Amino acid sequence: MSRRVYADTGVFVCFEGGEGAGKSTQSGLLRTWLEERDHTVLLTFEPGDTPVGQALRRIVLSPETGELSHRTEALLYAADKAEHVDTVVLPALARGEVVITDRYVDSSLAYQGAGRDLLLADVERVNRWATGDLRPHLTVVLDLAPEAGLGRFTERDRIEGESVEFHERVRQGFLDLAAADPDHYVVLDARAPIEEIAAAIRARVEVLLP
Amino acid sequence: MSRRVYADTGVFVCFEGGEGAGKSTQSGLLRTWLEERDHTVLLTFEPGDTPVGQALRRIVLSPETGELSHRTEALLYAADKAEHVDTVVLPALARGEVVITDRYVDSSLAYQGAGRDLLLADVERVNRWATGDLRPHLTVVLDLAPEAGLGRFTERDRIEGESVEFHERVRQGFLDLAAADPDHYVVLDARAPIEEIAAAIRARVEVLLP
Repeated sequence: MSRRVYADTGVFVCFEGGEGAGKSTQSGLLRTWLEERDHTVLLTFEPGDTPVGQALRRIVLSPETGELSHRTEALLYAADKAEHVDTVVLPALARGEVVITDRYVDSSLAYQGAGRDLLLADVERVNRWATGDLRPHLTVVLDLAPEAGLGRFTERDRIEGESVEFHERVRQGFLDLAAADPDHYVVLDARAPIEEIAAAIRARVEVLLP
Repeated sequence: MSRRVYADTGVFVCFEGGEGAGKSTQSGLLRTWLEERDHTVLLTFEPGDTPVGQALRRIVLSPETGELSHRTEALLYAADKAEHVDTVVLPALARGEVVITDRYVDSSLAYQGAGRDLLLADVERVNRWATGDLRPHLTVVLDLAPEAGLGRFTERDRIEGESVEFHERVRQGFLDLAAADPDHYVVLDARAPIEEIAAAIRARVEVLLP
């Protein structure tokens, strides 16, 4: 895990956290703020923001898929990431853009590594290979108790429908990742006022801008 | 790569080789021969012999998919294998059956590792993890020059449509794997008479039967 890659052009920001923590809202606000300052922004997401990724997203999230081997699930998410990094994220960074992604490798580490019965080190190895170990300059973790986040949904997909204990392990997974690398993470309480969260994110992003 | 797993019930036989080498014919003949001797046989294949595998097979083989990142492709094949081993191969071996599969890990090592620009060691690590390092008791490599095998097809899928040089690297990939582990491989000239090849396969399989 020692050959971390940080893009030397562009800025790569990830939003991570459990369901209903406000990742879409905050990534959208950050995009608007950046565009008002004349930065070119690519707002993207995982899984599913490539043609093959759309097909994979249907498989991993549709309740109709039913049971999947946990390794199968982890490998499908990793395949989505490989395609996303190679065809969407890296080209935009090479053009010097600010790439904001709603979920990235940490989601796989938290959901498949911490949430499932797989070894975190194995899930990490597969995902680092899938992404060429490309790391975000900053990962924003929007932290929220699962009960609060999941309560926002009435219809749940395959992952949302997992137990509260599963989602508790996922939450702790994100917090552990952030604690291990504070220079590249900011953890924010998702229950704070939207504008307060947005300001905290901007403060961390601003220093990364060219 | 040191924790190889050989099933202790059942017999696991794989057929490998390039396009048009006769894998379907020979695996079918072996199945018939075994069933005539009252063995329970599961004849299966990769990619695609699970519900999720069918969807993945369409993605990796359909010419409509177009370009895929080579890592994406390797991870999709690995996901198919994970599901295949967990839900098809291992349960049948646990029931004491003879499992015959048309393609397995070696196809990924040859096509994605030797054929593409990926490091063989990386592709192997992903596939060994995907399959829990389950190894066949015997792998039959049906060896054929690409020109001879591909000539049999008029409509080619994404993989068959690759260059002759690609298929030459694939062929050499299979031969290298067999040379490294002769106890678990038999390499047969696919141009030999069908019955001669079948007899050679039976001789190697017979000693594995309970």
